[in-house]
Amino acid sequence: MAPKTKFELKTPKGTKDWFGNDMLIRERIFTQLRTVFQKHGALELDTPTFELTDILGGKYGEDSKLIYELKDQGGELSSLRYDLTVPFARFCAMNALQNCKRYHIAKVFRRDQPAMSKGRMREFYQCDIDIAGVYDPMIPDAEILYILTEVFEGLGWKGNYTIKLNHRKILDGLFQSCGVPEDKIRPISSAVDKLDKLPWADVKKEMTEEKGLAEDVADRIGEWVVLKGKHDLLEKLRADPTISQNKLIQEGLADLQLLFEYLEAFGAFERISFDLSLARGLDYYTGVIYEVVTEGSAPSTTPGSKDSKPKKSKGGKDDDDRSNDPSVGVGSVAAGGRYDGLVGMFSGKAQVPCVGVSFGVERIFSITKARMAAENETAPSTVDVYIMALGSKAGLIKERLAIAAKLWEAGIKTEFLYKTKPKLPQQFKAADATQTPFAVIVGDEEVEKGVVKIKELGLPDGHPQKDGELVQLTALVPEVQKRLARKRELDDIARGAEGLKVVGGLRGEDVKPEETSAPAAPAEEPKPTESS
Amino acid sequence: MAPKTKFELKTPKGTKDWFGNDMLIRERIFTQLRTVFQKHGALELDTPTFELTDILGGKYGEDSKLIYELKDQGGELSSLRYDLTVPFARFCAMNALQNCKRYHIAKVFRRDQPAMSKGRMREFYQCDIDIAGVYDPMIPDAEILYILTEVFEGLGWKGNYTIKLNHRKILDGLFQSCGVPEDKIRPISSAVDKLDKLPWADVKKEMTEEKGLAEDVADRIGEWVVLKGKHDLLEKLRADPTISQNKLIQEGLADLQLLFEYLEAFGAFERISFDLSLARGLDYYTGVIYEVVTEGSAPSTTPGSKDSKPKKSKGGKDDDDRSNDPSVGVGSVAAGGRYDGLVGMFSGKAQVPCVGVSFGVERIFSITKARMAAENETAPSTVDVYIMALGSKAGLIKERLAIAAKLWEAGIKTEFLYKTKPKLPQQFKAADATQTPFAVIVGDEEVEKGVVKIKELGLPDGHPQKDGELVQLTALVPEVQKRLARKRELDDIARGAEGLKVVGGLRGEDVKPEETSAPAAPAEEPKPTESS
Repeated sequence: MAPKTKFELKTPKGTKDWFGNDMLIRERIFTQLRTVFQKHGALELDTPTFELTDILGGKYGEDSKLIYELKDQGGELSSLRYDLTVPFARFCAMNALQNCKRYHIAKVFRRDQPAMSKGRMREFYQCDIDIAGVYDPMIPDAEILYILTEVFEGLGWKGNYTIKLNHRKILDGLFQSCGVPEDKIRPISSAVDKLDKLPWADVKKEMTEEKGLAEDVADRIGEWVVLKGKHDLLEKLRADPTISQNKLIQEGLADLQLLFEYLEAFGAFERISFDLSLARGLDYYTGVIYEVVTEGSAPSTTPGSKDSKPKKSKGGKDDDDRSNDPSVGVGSVAAGGRYDGLVGMFSGKAQVPCVGVSFGVERIFSITKARMAAENETAPSTVDVYIMALGSKAGLIKERLAIAAKLWEAGIKTEFLYKTKPKLPQQFKAADATQTPFAVIVGDEEVEKGVVKIKELGLPDGHPQKDGELVQLTALVPEVQKRLARKRELDDIARGAEGLKVVGGLRGEDVKPEETSAPAAPAEEPKPTESS
Repeated sequence: MAPKTKFELKTPKGTKDWFGNDMLIRERIFTQLRTVFQKHGALELDTPTFELTDILGGKYGEDSKLIYELKDQGGELSSLRYDLTVPFARFCAMNALQNCKRYHIAKVFRRDQPAMSKGRMREFYQCDIDIAGVYDPMIPDAEILYILTEVFEGLGWKGNYTIKLNHRKILDGLFQSCGVPEDKIRPISSAVDKLDKLPWADVKKEMTEEKGLAEDVADRIGEWVVLKGKHDLLEKLRADPTISQNKLIQEGLADLQLLFEYLEAFGAFERISFDLSLARGLDYYTGVIYEVVTEGSAPSTTPGSKDSKPKKSKGGKDDDDRSNDPSVGVGSVAAGGRYDGLVGMFSGKAQVPCVGVSFGVERIFSITKARMAAENETAPSTVDVYIMALGSKAGLIKERLAIAAKLWEAGIKTEFLYKTKPKLPQQFKAADATQTPFAVIVGDEEVEKGVVKIKELGLPDGHPQKDGELVQLTALVPEVQKRLARKRELDDIARGAEGLKVVGGLRGEDVKPEETSAPAAPAEEPKPTESS
């Protein structure tokens, strides 16, 4: 064994460990996403953490400087993946797939300036679903947008989000017919993309002063890109004699007309906002583009609030005065679009058109965690039963081991203190640390009679069940299962009533007092599983 | 968009994409491991993919040359993690945890010469569970060994594996009392570790000729390290007048005596083989060490086979003549032990003793996949319902979208062809590609009457249900759910009977012919989800 050495004990810049409650919340979000993706018949793909450096080259424009490269230790040059989209396109091209519906949940890496408080990390998860293949227009696009509503409704955001939608062809056609020179279309597009953070005056200034656009051209753009709507905005574009002559716009309008009809058939049109200011940064989009924005941290709405300045929501602290307009706030929580040219960049021959979306789990996590804290909601206990020795000088370690094996075999989450002669307070403290709902208690007398005591933990003094119940050792498993099922049922009722209360101020009479009294807020720190 | 470029379309050496059936099998193994770990109250930890290079230094001996380093792009020097144990120790030390029970399922990276056919990759998954903390001797060690039996029994290996167990102190004490000089103890230990691959004569040669050990010392070692047993071997060591005087051996024997008693209390002693030839490579082990070996790919046993040469099992092809001795074959599928000094290397002060095990998912995957192929078992279909348009010139796309939304909302896995006017054979082909069990069919007449047809796919001609059944559109969801539940029940019976048949040649009368007729073997290639 090497001698003890002094290390700087930290994780690399922009990275962190995930443990305890945070990990449980994040896993719940992954499960939610995975369940939705699988409902659509998508298969999971897992690609290597690093790709050949050549594969990533020329895909990310200026952001290529953020790619982590592996050291040249002899052999191929490789880099950590920057996103999941390019590896997906590489996979499709490499296997000459004509169609593929896949999801991918994995870490990506960007050597950016980290801003941990804003959730900008150098290592973070992306959750993507994409549909590749030559199909009739807008059908897969509609399904991806349906998935967006499904995920956020499933997360309990109940309409408290907006899907901003635009079409690259409409945007480019708009710039053309307003008189933007071809070589200025992308820079002007990226100026427009800032309209969610800056007022029009500032954006116009960037266009004219920084990017040299003629003032009258900027003014014509300005009339359009501030517009939002649904069918009405399609109509307005169609009705304009100049605009409606543009071929790109005509194509884009036909797409959106069809898309809106399909979304109506899906019953997923409500949260859509056709928003001419949405431009999206990445070059590879070729059709419909979208991003999902939400106001922040809590699901309850506070009608009547007049404050509509964009601001960051911090852990539900500003719930009372936050905006009623869900389209301002913490930035996008999901984004995507159609990219018909990327696979062709690899295959060199067959184009395989693709459409997809990427969910930003870190941001969804922050919002979910803040909401749980605001609602005093905790993650469920990770342990069902704590086995304790009580009233025995011997400590009964082998008896406790045998009981543990019985419970594990039945799928019951069980712990006990790793001491031959444990002290009673230590055992209760350990059970308390994980909010374990039940104790199974053995003493010399119980062993002799072939019984054990089951005791629900955390009951108030005077509760009829406070002292627990003796059951036959042979009946332990079904007796524990019965109590766990009942406990879960009551917890569900409590949670349901809590949910109703938050949304509509409704009643929660079905719930016993001890079920609604909220446990402590989720711990920030990694939580040791047991005190020794 | 950049012009099309020619790339070498491959993943980096020693890495691969996971998709389709392989991914489903691997996910099933992860779920199995996760479920067991969670039953023991372990919390999941996620550490960064790379650590500061200094953290990894001096931990892996000669293998340090296999560490992947990130390129120096300014800032800290980092390296991809080599295993999950060192990051866990770093995490415990950094957070000054006195105790922690965690599991971790993640990729590790080794710049080794890859041997894909043997499952040796440069990027591969490890699944670890470890218990850190100062506890009474052998209680956590016994729980980790219990987890080993739980995982392999849960995977259906039914006793077809052996847990080889030894103790570093017994091994070192043995070398001392046989007369091995202190500086030769580790090299001699590593020679002993080869006894599972080489006969004693070759190992002795390495000790004497290569490593300069006296012949009589080697002979004394040779009398001991070939021995295996349980309590009998403990007894034999205790009975030897020289050996039993050694202090290390006395400590090791006391540990194992206690461990055996605990394992008996757990009911998990059966698969244990106390094996004095087990040495384990890594330097950091300080107490009990173990590894799990299995003969190969299939769960059925073939008593009477005399062939006991170690060999690789290849997809169940050599089931008939493979060895009856489960301790030879594909190498270890899990390994671990006690390491009491590693956290102290980081913290510089407090020692936090640890014990744990790492499961080799890639090897477990190969064995599971080969077994499934041998048993003609396929992963369950990833889609429940395929919606088809039939007998309508219009194609009924909006009707299909509305039905899809209904089914998705009810949690039913649903697909349909992304065509406005799909051809019938295309739709059947697409449903067939994912072995979708049910079709929901709409035509003009059905739409008019407010009904749909549910049809079970793959029924033989003449089957009474072959033509499907008309149901009210309003009753579609419960009707589909009813059929899916019945189908799953029948599949379970079929699988159960299949399992019985393999193990004991028992009957399978409960099963309808169409349930047992095995579908095609799992595909090797990534499977497109749909043909267009």
